[in-house]
Amino acid sequence: MKKFQVVGIGNAMVDVLARAEDAFLADAGVQKGIMQLIDMDRAVDLYARVGPAKEVSGGSAANTIAGIAHLGGQTAYVGKVKDDQLGAIFAHDLRAQGATYETSLAPKTEEAETGRCIVIVTPDGERSMNTYLGVTEFLTADDIDDAQMADAEWIYLEGYRFDGPESHAAFAKAIAACKGAGGRVSLTLSDPFCIERHRNAFRDMVRDHVDLLFCNRAEMLSMYETEDFVAALGKSAENVPIVACTDSENGVYILSGGQRWHVPAVPTEIVDATGAGDLFAGAFLWGLTHGHALEMCGKMGNVAAAEVISHIGARPESDLKALFAAQGLL
Amino acid sequence: MKKFQVVGIGNAMVDVLARAEDAFLADAGVQKGIMQLIDMDRAVDLYARVGPAKEVSGGSAANTIAGIAHLGGQTAYVGKVKDDQLGAIFAHDLRAQGATYETSLAPKTEEAETGRCIVIVTPDGERSMNTYLGVTEFLTADDIDDAQMADAEWIYLEGYRFDGPESHAAFAKAIAACKGAGGRVSLTLSDPFCIERHRNAFRDMVRDHVDLLFCNRAEMLSMYETEDFVAALGKSAENVPIVACTDSENGVYILSGGQRWHVPAVPTEIVDATGAGDLFAGAFLWGLTHGHALEMCGKMGNVAAAEVISHIGARPESDLKALFAAQGLL
Repeated sequence: MKKFQVVGIGNAMVDVLARAEDAFLADAGVQKGIMQLIDMDRAVDLYARVGPAKEVSGGSAANTIAGIAHLGGQTAYVGKVKDDQLGAIFAHDLRAQGATYETSLAPKTEEAETGRCIVIVTPDGERSMNTYLGVTEFLTADDIDDAQMADAEWIYLEGYRFDGPESHAAFAKAIAACKGAGGRVSLTLSDPFCIERHRNAFRDMVRDHVDLLFCNRAEMLSMYETEDFVAALGKSAENVPIVACTDSENGVYILSGGQRWHVPAVPTEIVDATGAGDLFAGAFLWGLTHGHALEMCGKMGNVAAAEVISHIGARPESDLKALFAAQGLL
Repeated sequence: MKKFQVVGIGNAMVDVLARAEDAFLADAGVQKGIMQLIDMDRAVDLYARVGPAKEVSGGSAANTIAGIAHLGGQTAYVGKVKDDQLGAIFAHDLRAQGATYETSLAPKTEEAETGRCIVIVTPDGERSMNTYLGVTEFLTADDIDDAQMADAEWIYLEGYRFDGPESHAAFAKAIAACKGAGGRVSLTLSDPFCIERHRNAFRDMVRDHVDLLFCNRAEMLSMYETEDFVAALGKSAENVPIVACTDSENGVYILSGGQRWHVPAVPTEIVDATGAGDLFAGAFLWGLTHGHALEMCGKMGNVAAAEVISHIGARPESDLKALFAAQGLL
């Protein structure tokens, strides 16, 4: 019996959520609907231009881990923050959700700060993310505790971390420790542009190490450099034992052992799309580590995704288990 | 023509909003429904005990000023923050709302941090506030710019600041500068326990200087040390040209020039009561400085209060002018 069902590794970020009209995005030079990396100067400039904001803990893998912890799963998280106020907020919110988070804080003297993501939410609920990585960029193999990885049924790797050269080594170390102890590896592709930047590294990892792949349609197409979604799904299923590919309002496609399931999305009004994929993965992994069949895991993922996009912020605010029960899933 | 319609002076705070059951309040020694002052050690301890939270700019008078600015009024705010991340958040959110906020930042070397209020919201929507004042405690007469106060049609003073000994002098300086230039003085009583701590100072100021008094029923009763609400209202009206006293779901009582109006509340589901009084005052002052009659100002105040209690956070998220128009007030 391992201590952790899932240990996540990713970018530790506080989200700065502001609403704006589409015209603002064009004026401010923000690309709609994707994640763009920005430096501190740009972060200061952009922050000065957006309206009043709310600060909530974010980070893709951290949202996933918070979702699993919310459901009662045993989880831990690895991601770097600084010894500053935003770092304290990030750490508090993970621990308060029940996740284990023992991080080596970057000291106050370090120039870079805790990472933040200025998320601009347009009236259609779409989020355009502007990420200042800060100290989370410097996650290295030294931050990986072999014993923790060996004590995980699953590790969950955030594709965004491919943007950090030293994080490739961190992932390799985590994979070796986890698999060496009989654990399994899940990965989220995170973003089509991140895949473009690091396609070969993604493909190698998916082929050689990944047991469960999370992605959305755009990421899947980018990964296999095709416009043929069915073909891309097929290719991924040749490489990976379990694939869960979300397709917005069309729901999710799950492929495993030659079988394929389509699970329709749960209709909901989109207030803020931030965290939909993260919470899908969280509920899916919770289901999987609690003995549920893959199709049921997909249903749970869709319910959790619908909850998180119905409000501002990327972590659950309603009791997900109660929602599962209301849908007849528990 | 003065530059500012309203200049507010108060505690500059970031709210840390967390949900909890009533049982948590008893376990954690938090008194329900009121504001309690806590030190940094208690703030750290309490924060460690609450669940995941959201950070949003707060501060009673700052919420009022943000509300007036949201409505398009010309405003400025005076309150102390530190040169830290929470201070930057507070400053950003006020400026982004359109308020003037030129503050002398407490330096990074200062031990105290930017103030914060751990607001615990129970299922009934009631908020129990735990305030670490931080550097905002040290607002002094030096922070008051006579020219700015002279350029204000109204100043708006936050009763909570009576907890800071040097802030009495700051208020006196602001009042003298404002009144000396023909401006008027409004005050919010803030909290019944704050009144208990400083009843004589409150009474003297109300009698000698205040042109417009905002309070709620409990504060009014505490101020005049009586259980007779009608008698207390009458007493206040003898001292102050305009009194606006809110009474939760019973609406608001407005007294002026021997007349009295009762304006019913706008029915709404309470999600988070934080900021109801602040936004009432904001909309009331906006109405007053834009030529509306007192009863109409009360109606606007009630609409704004209903908006702010319908969501988490103490500042408006919907277009208040559109809501006024929908209610036939504009």
